[in-house]
Amino acid sequence: MAKTPLPWCVRPGSRVRLKDFDPADTRGLTEKEAALADLERSRSRLAELQERLYAENRRAVLVVLQGMDAAGKDGTIEHVFHSVSPIGCQVHSFTAPSDEERDHDFLWRVAMRLPRYGNIGIFNRSHYEDVVAVRVRRIAPRSVWEPRYEQINCYEKLLCSMGTRIVKFFLHIDRDEQRERLLDRLRDPNKAWKYQPGDLDDRKLWNDYQHAYEDVLERCSTEAAPWHIVPANKKWVRNALVAQTLIAVLEEMDPKPPKASFDWRKIKIPK
Amino acid sequence: MAKTPLPWCVRPGSRVRLKDFDPADTRGLTEKEAALADLERSRSRLAELQERLYAENRRAVLVVLQGMDAAGKDGTIEHVFHSVSPIGCQVHSFTAPSDEERDHDFLWRVAMRLPRYGNIGIFNRSHYEDVVAVRVRRIAPRSVWEPRYEQINCYEKLLCSMGTRIVKFFLHIDRDEQRERLLDRLRDPNKAWKYQPGDLDDRKLWNDYQHAYEDVLERCSTEAAPWHIVPANKKWVRNALVAQTLIAVLEEMDPKPPKASFDWRKIKIPK
Repeated sequence: MAKTPLPWCVRPGSRVRLKDFDPADTRGLTEKEAALADLERSRSRLAELQERLYAENRRAVLVVLQGMDAAGKDGTIEHVFHSVSPIGCQVHSFTAPSDEERDHDFLWRVAMRLPRYGNIGIFNRSHYEDVVAVRVRRIAPRSVWEPRYEQINCYEKLLCSMGTRIVKFFLHIDRDEQRERLLDRLRDPNKAWKYQPGDLDDRKLWNDYQHAYEDVLERCSTEAAPWHIVPANKKWVRNALVAQTLIAVLEEMDPKPPKASFDWRKIKIPK
Repeated sequence: MAKTPLPWCVRPGSRVRLKDFDPADTRGLTEKEAALADLERSRSRLAELQERLYAENRRAVLVVLQGMDAAGKDGTIEHVFHSVSPIGCQVHSFTAPSDEERDHDFLWRVAMRLPRYGNIGIFNRSHYEDVVAVRVRRIAPRSVWEPRYEQINCYEKLLCSMGTRIVKFFLHIDRDEQRERLLDRLRDPNKAWKYQPGDLDDRKLWNDYQHAYEDVLERCSTEAAPWHIVPANKKWVRNALVAQTLIAVLEEMDPKPPKASFDWRKIKIPK
């Protein structure tokens, strides 16, 4: 956890009721125009810090994005990481596990996709689906998913101790906002591809999902890898807060390019 | 750890001095001919148990083989696993890490090679090189390798809790036996390819290696994944003990094929 955690960071051990968090909160940001200009600056800063991380090449950052359907995971990636070079930044979108993945423990496919040192890896959905969707849709019994909270904490702590900093975001929207966004998808021929009939099944299970997320936020917010609850009804607020969080984390990590092992004055470049 | 661990299993927390273990010990096996006949039976039994593990398809076994050069890692694999179908049994021989592997934590390449459920994976060398060779050859400073014992214990415990049973063997030979075997390699044109000049550098560091292994055997013998010290001067003893250990582990795991979901009497096969 950061030495001075941001207010939307979940302190380890605290109780989480999502109803206590207003998804339309602006977290002190009052003007959209100013926030957008600020996001532009944040993006440049993020690109700069990522380049230093890449030059240092000794640690990695893993960003985990979770949220209900239409919470804005894709949009966050597009808007926040837009200026970061894809050389040092990779996204992996997790869908249903393959046969090969199912034939391993649930964390195996996570290990396969971990970012190289020097890189920012972004998980669009993640191993948390194995304690959220798997639980809510009853894909596996409690005896399977119950030990996973502890297994996740143990694994994340281990990764952290070996140089991968994990930053987890729960993008928090409400039911009405989801309805608007799903309607948008249906109405707009350019967005319709994002709509899947299964979205409505999950929407019916809204309360179960919220409850499963509350358990995740409570049980898997650790010193090594805390969760951040980002109010996400307003996209400009969501983007600003995610960017601010990542900048704070990277500034604390303070990556430094290795010192040059040569004296530049002595190096001649042949004509 | 097995409910009734074999005598060559290192109890967690015990102190290990390799000088106290006779590499020429026969561990109660007195006759080579009888032991060889017994190994033949063990191999069939192992093949049978592995097939049940494969049919069950819910857990995996990971065999870790470590030892000094010429301790017999390759020979053990050849002689013990010889009857097990390669469909459900894969060997991975670890060498120096690749650039991509070096750009991740030291356990990442282990994760990449974990056996699928239903399979036996064999590691010919392993992550233990990262606290043995790396330490003895001073490839990394103490600040890098010291935390790894704990990281290994944590990771192995996690794997175990998710269904991968880890069985670790240290093949214990003495300096004289190594000398004989290296000379054999040099003298026999069919074995000469196995000889590498670096073997002699490592031989010079014999005591440092023994000491590094003592630390591994003491610090990484856990309830979840204990080490076995196998006297390996006599190949027939080594093979018999490794086979016995694996059979004991698999019998305790007692894998069972899933029950048929159909009534065979009702199924007609079209002519």
